[in-house]
Amino acid sequence: MLAEAASTLGFDVVVLEPQANCPASRVAARHIQAAYDDAEGLKALAAACDVVTTEFENVPASVVAILEAEGVRVAPNGRALAVAQDRIEEKTYLNSVGATTVDFRQVDGLNDLTAAIEALGLPALLKTRREGYDGKGQVWIRDTADAASALETLGGRPSILEAAARFSRELSVIAARGTDGAVAVYPLGQNIHENGILRTTIAPADNVDADTQARAVDIATNILNGLDYVGVIGVELFDLGDRLLVNEIAPRVHNTGHWTQDGCGCDQFEQHIRAIAGWPLGSTKPHAKVEMTNLLGDEINDWPALAANPANHLHFYGKHEARAGRKMAHVNKVLEDL
Amino acid sequence: MLAEAASTLGFDVVVLEPQANCPASRVAARHIQAAYDDAEGLKALAAACDVVTTEFENVPASVVAILEAEGVRVAPNGRALAVAQDRIEEKTYLNSVGATTVDFRQVDGLNDLTAAIEALGLPALLKTRREGYDGKGQVWIRDTADAASALETLGGRPSILEAAARFSRELSVIAARGTDGAVAVYPLGQNIHENGILRTTIAPADNVDADTQARAVDIATNILNGLDYVGVIGVELFDLGDRLLVNEIAPRVHNTGHWTQDGCGCDQFEQHIRAIAGWPLGSTKPHAKVEMTNLLGDEINDWPALAANPANHLHFYGKHEARAGRKMAHVNKVLEDL
Repeated sequence: MLAEAASTLGFDVVVLEPQANCPASRVAARHIQAAYDDAEGLKALAAACDVVTTEFENVPASVVAILEAEGVRVAPNGRALAVAQDRIEEKTYLNSVGATTVDFRQVDGLNDLTAAIEALGLPALLKTRREGYDGKGQVWIRDTADAASALETLGGRPSILEAAARFSRELSVIAARGTDGAVAVYPLGQNIHENGILRTTIAPADNVDADTQARAVDIATNILNGLDYVGVIGVELFDLGDRLLVNEIAPRVHNTGHWTQDGCGCDQFEQHIRAIAGWPLGSTKPHAKVEMTNLLGDEINDWPALAANPANHLHFYGKHEARAGRKMAHVNKVLEDL
Repeated sequence: MLAEAASTLGFDVVVLEPQANCPASRVAARHIQAAYDDAEGLKALAAACDVVTTEFENVPASVVAILEAEGVRVAPNGRALAVAQDRIEEKTYLNSVGATTVDFRQVDGLNDLTAAIEALGLPALLKTRREGYDGKGQVWIRDTADAASALETLGGRPSILEAAARFSRELSVIAARGTDGAVAVYPLGQNIHENGILRTTIAPADNVDADTQARAVDIATNILNGLDYVGVIGVELFDLGDRLLVNEIAPRVHNTGHWTQDGCGCDQFEQHIRAIAGWPLGSTKPHAKVEMTNLLGDEINDWPALAANPANHLHFYGKHEARAGRKMAHVNKVLEDL
């Protein structure tokens, strides 16, 4: 979707991705098939491009330095990637810019975990510090007796214990920052997860007062400015009624921002390309209220009924295998013109 | 733009086009670089595809038969292409289905032309029967004495003389027909040409009463049904106040339909892919009134100012050389939310 947005704005796109026939290669001018940290591949990418971006937060942050040494501009920057890749770094950074998170403790073994449970109470969420997405790499601890087995479940990797947040709902905000420091923020969306995987986003979210939207704008702006960030970021939030806590950030276009494709004149993909290319940012004003639903695995086979409803806009990813739980496509249903 | 729409709906796109680095190849899974009538190229295309479409009306109509003989479905069909490629065939067909055109005469030499001028009066427009677009291959005759030189200007090719239409404005209608025979018609747009090249379309057009829109729907429907057409068609119309005359048809997505990208939930490109793939057609209801402006040649250099206006949506074609008068991009300016 980024490649399509880029080509619409007149850019030729080169994709570096280890997988053959990857979705992006279907809509890009060129595909360099190489590992994300392959020296030759990165050299070829740098030689072909004026600016490089990432759409997956687990590209090693060290890759940014390699590309920059080749003289190519990279956005977002290496610090943003590094911060987002480690939950301890991430939460430490967020709190340092006033983007409050739940309490947390670093866990490098059972002693740490016992002390962390003591400090944060139960239930609490044990997560690996690095990697993990869509609910992978995390386990709830509800009883002190389960501490050891929880560590085992995560394979003894460096971890973080997060206090439970007593939130009424999950929101997210998609924001962008340009090379000139301008920030643009989309209206908040409300998210529903199932089994740790995003199922739907409704945006603009219902029952968001001006204060809450303003708080979200402040949070996103502070996060972006503190990182000297360029591009689109996704910020997941817990709504506690009188305040918002940041759950996590994604240094890229975000699944909870897909609604903008059919709700806004400038969607998050065009916005990201505008930002990294040094263009002025586009408008974040919505023209429609949208319900975005992910199609997982063989749910993609429901497309005939979905396509028959004119309120639905289908976005398929071109993945060739519909593995269980895999995000294959999403549907944006226009609920209301605004 | 068709390739992008197709990939969004989950299709892999193979492009057959003689030019290296053509715009479509930047956003397609595969590019077969071959002439439109190259036997090997067509064989490879047919082997790779379930359905083949054309986005240029001067692909030889005979190519359709070659592809069909290879067992691949082609939409629109060969008859639609053949009719649209010859102005005599086109006008004869249009009038046969009640889609009235200006009076015309076949011109195969000076005797024909003299008789045609006698019958139709002056001024009248001499055009080559085949090829010619954006004002090329045509010349106005305002005086009988200019007949011979007009023929010479067109290189003595088989021609058509068209009576002048005393129209108040140029309109066009974009319509689609599915494999099930369903027809969907977008609101009329109003077009302004400069030097024979489309400059702007405003759609939905101002001052279109329900009768006029209904007449346009009838015209488009009759044209589509009579050709057993599948896909999107562009129909250029002269508005004579009390009636509409058809100027010409384009058996493809059409420049005057580009406004739908930012004015409708399902634009003409998605609509065409839906039609040829056998999907149900999408909604043609507009959510915005749009002014589409073509950027010709080095007008593309105006992009920074254009990109800074949040009402503007830029669509670049990825052409690498900005020759004078060449369509390089278009801008859809949202005039009003509907």
